[in-house]
Amino acid sequence: MADYVRNVWYMAAWEEEIVGDAMLGRTLLDEPWLMFRKADGGYAMMSDRCPHRLAPLHKGQRKDDTVGCPYHGLGFDASGVCVHNPFSDVIPPHARLPALPIVARYGGLWFWPGDAALADSDLIPDFSALDDPAPMVRGKTRFEANYEVITDNLMDLSHAEFIHVETFRTEGKIFAGRHSVTETQDGAIWSNWAMSNTRRPPWLEALPEDARLDEWLEMRWHAPSSMLLHIGFTLAGTPRDEAPIPSMINPHIITPETQSTSHYFFTRQPGGDSEALAHKVFEEEDRPMLEEIQRRMGDTDFWDWKPVILHVDAAAIRARRRLMKMRREESSGQDCAAA
Amino acid sequence: MADYVRNVWYMAAWEEEIVGDAMLGRTLLDEPWLMFRKADGGYAMMSDRCPHRLAPLHKGQRKDDTVGCPYHGLGFDASGVCVHNPFSDVIPPHARLPALPIVARYGGLWFWPGDAALADSDLIPDFSALDDPAPMVRGKTRFEANYEVITDNLMDLSHAEFIHVETFRTEGKIFAGRHSVTETQDGAIWSNWAMSNTRRPPWLEALPEDARLDEWLEMRWHAPSSMLLHIGFTLAGTPRDEAPIPSMINPHIITPETQSTSHYFFTRQPGGDSEALAHKVFEEEDRPMLEEIQRRMGDTDFWDWKPVILHVDAAAIRARRRLMKMRREESSGQDCAAA
Amino acid sequence: MADYVRNVWYMAAWEEEIVGDAMLGRTLLDEPWLMFRKADGGYAMMSDRCPHRLAPLHKGQRKDDTVGCPYHGLGFDASGVCVHNPFSDVIPPHARLPALPIVARYGGLWFWPGDAALADSDLIPDFSALDDPAPMVRGKTRFEANYEVITDNLMDLSHAEFIHVETFRTEGKIFAGRHSVTETQDGAIWSNWAMSNTRRPPWLEALPEDARLDEWLEMRWHAPSSMLLHIGFTLAGTPRDEAPIPSMINPHIITPETQSTSHYFFTRQPGGDSEALAHKVFEEEDRPMLEEIQRRMGDTDFWDWKPVILHVDAAAIRARRRLMKMRREESSGQDCAAA
Repeated sequence: MADYVRNVWYMAAWEEEIVGDAMLGRTLLDEPWLMFRKADGGYAMMSDRCPHRLAPLHKGQRKDDTVGCPYHGLGFDASGVCVHNPFSDVIPPHARLPALPIVARYGGLWFWPGDAALADSDLIPDFSALDDPAPMVRGKTRFEANYEVITDNLMDLSHAEFIHVETFRTEGKIFAGRHSVTETQDGAIWSNWAMSNTRRPPWLEALPEDARLDEWLEMRWHAPSSMLLHIGFTLAGTPRDEAPIPSMINPHIITPETQSTSHYFFTRQPGGDSEALAHKVFEEEDRPMLEEIQRRMGDTDFWDWKPVILHVDAAAIRARRRLMKMRREESSGQDCAAA
Repeated sequence: MADYVRNVWYMAAWEEEIVGDAMLGRTLLDEPWLMFRKADGGYAMMSDRCPHRLAPLHKGQRKDDTVGCPYHGLGFDASGVCVHNPFSDVIPPHARLPALPIVARYGGLWFWPGDAALADSDLIPDFSALDDPAPMVRGKTRFEANYEVITDNLMDLSHAEFIHVETFRTEGKIFAGRHSVTETQDGAIWSNWAMSNTRRPPWLEALPEDARLDEWLEMRWHAPSSMLLHIGFTLAGTPRDEAPIPSMINPHIITPETQSTSHYFFTRQPGGDSEALAHKVFEEEDRPMLEEIQRRMGDTDFWDWKPVILHVDAAAIRARRRLMKMRREESSGQDCAAA
Repeated sequence: MADYVRNVWYMAAWEEEIVGDAMLGRTLLDEPWLMFRKADGGYAMMSDRCPHRLAPLHKGQRKDDTVGCPYHGLGFDASGVCVHNPFSDVIPPHARLPALPIVARYGGLWFWPGDAALADSDLIPDFSALDDPAPMVRGKTRFEANYEVITDNLMDLSHAEFIHVETFRTEGKIFAGRHSVTETQDGAIWSNWAMSNTRRPPWLEALPEDARLDEWLEMRWHAPSSMLLHIGFTLAGTPRDEAPIPSMINPHIITPETQSTSHYFFTRQPGGDSEALAHKVFEEEDRPMLEEIQRRMGDTDFWDWKPVILHVDAAAIRARRRLMKMRREESSGQDCAAA
């Protein structure tokens, strides 16, 4: 299995998953981690495995910014350093938990599993669209599939014509659209579909029945697998900034739990219909397909399957290659450091 | 784990398991396969893993003899060749699924996982007894046991005196019988019991109570593990062809799903009593024993356990040795081809 | 994974787990074993895997001291030697089951998985306290945790201040106590807490409310992981043998099922309250913690985690080092024997 890219921001949780003083334990990148909100409003993230007897610290007690182990009571501060030994005034000198930089932004908690000296929060991908005051429901699910398999799915939205054919009723529009892949200065890879002169969909009753539209469907990817989907339209032939209603923006942020399972963060409109739609799309359409693919892939690397590549895969393949390059650079960097 | 013998016919399914235009997905010899009935009445068998993104093709759509991938719509003809690309008129040149020869015979579908040039349908073992017009119910179960472990069970029917003692009431007849092993020109190995001058069983009310019988119990094996059981009797001292009622013939055809799990094809008499009996024999008597044995065997090869061999194992051992020889020949054949 | 120490007594079961003529099948030290009570009142222990076809013998039939295989009826005597072949008067010469010394003592059945010539029953740790006529209920549970992880838990009872804080209400007494570790001639390692001049607990209404006590809590360990807990008190400043009520004695005897799962033998007072308390302590408090630790440990050896060691771990560490030494000696002994 390929290693994880380390010097990059991953999303660990939505902010509201940490309720008050509670501690959140979550497996991320194959390791158990513990997160909590500090007295100063910031967040702490450290290993969820006590260095004494490997106990799960998130089941312990918080006292201010100190975490007490539920098993024998060693206390650790927000940087993971042991500051309390209930059996002695002497703190064991090597009792220190690995801790990671963690930053709250755009409603999510972002962590940096690599070299902490490089953890510049300006490198967190811009999800400021999520700060929109319009209330969206933030959701999370878990797929038994590798994060790059889920990225493949999202960077090639043509799959909507097949597995979401009932829910999204794209009715061939994506096929008829023009697909392009672009890269931007911020490190993003975009997988864009432009669909010109399309028929007004039935639900858009604000426009006359014979109105024609120019539509777009644009998925923005940042390493390792943090995506943002933009869906919009304007009257055919008119510029985007004259769109009659604002475009919809939906995050699809994937964080590896393990090499074969992933946390999946998304948002949806409030209301029962939207909840039902999200359930159908994520749980009944995407999940079974991606989990079947994961089982068929097994422990064999994606490239060793010598997969057939289509034009429409250009964006997904570019994201895979970017990660491969980052992994190669990180591993050769480590070799240099070791030499 | 030993490899599978490749140049031999295996049974994949009963014909009626493929209903109308439906596609059947089934794991056979560790790989996912897809089967369907073609417009011309024949059958097609190909990998159930799309060469594009590994999607399960059997969840897709049939259109005539073309299978459309449920994920992005690539279409494959009955020989596994990609014939449709929904995104372009260009068919990706390497988009081709492994496909296997498959033949319907005796109510079953038989496939040849080896060199297709050698797939002579005359080599399918003779199960014409199953074409008998008397209606039998065809059944299938799945055991979490290796196919050779199940073969051992069937080639040594003396186990009926123990684990089927309540259902078959053999009451020592098999012990008292004479066991012989023979091989025939068609490649079969026979494990035969002859029981002379036995008492009439209570259910055989058509014969006088003091009638004496000569009985036989004969299991015919063909590689890899396709068996046919013959049960018959005649009045003591009279020739077989004067038997008062025809002998019973039951297939026990085992096909590996994986090295530690197997598909088990059988038939039974119609009716609730027969259904209950088959359930008891297969599910409550054979299955727990064979699955326990599989767990106790673990990943250690059968021979590495240095098992005690009894005379009554002669047929089972001969079948095991035949498969070893076939595997050896196939693997040395591959070495030659590679040289 | 570290090997098991072989030349030592392990507890296999409570005597009453073998009811009448029944056979008990149990996985111990990664292998399936079969136990039964012989006609002479002694016990037999042998492999639960028939040397013929690996069948589970404990599902077979007992006839006097002979075990009949449920699959094909080979019979084995109490020493594991094949004495019956239902197919022939000839006994297969190599048909012999591994058999182990097994002794009933103190209500338990003790087995010796090493060199039988060294199996001196005087080496069984002294659990004669369990022979007390006062009726105690003997219990057994199963933890998905390694036996040394469970030993760590028991040799450092300070964990009671945390995970048993509600059930035992030690209220800091263990912290305030003096911990010492001693070794005795019988090979035991003791982990002892002495708590001086403590307040009378509320339930001890037989003593005046302002009575002061000297209490002790002493866990005795014998290899591999057979422990006996002594809990007692006396009026402050008076000698132990003047204790107003006898000290409580509870076995905690752990036997590996596999490297990551264990059998756990204990006793408790009769009655519903004691049953509920034992359930809470074992199943709701200790089990989840120890199983979480086992998951966090994974396949990595305990020492490779470079765990922080506290003073309070002295007894647990000494037990671990004793086992390491025993394993080293046994493996170098084998090397000598092989040379």
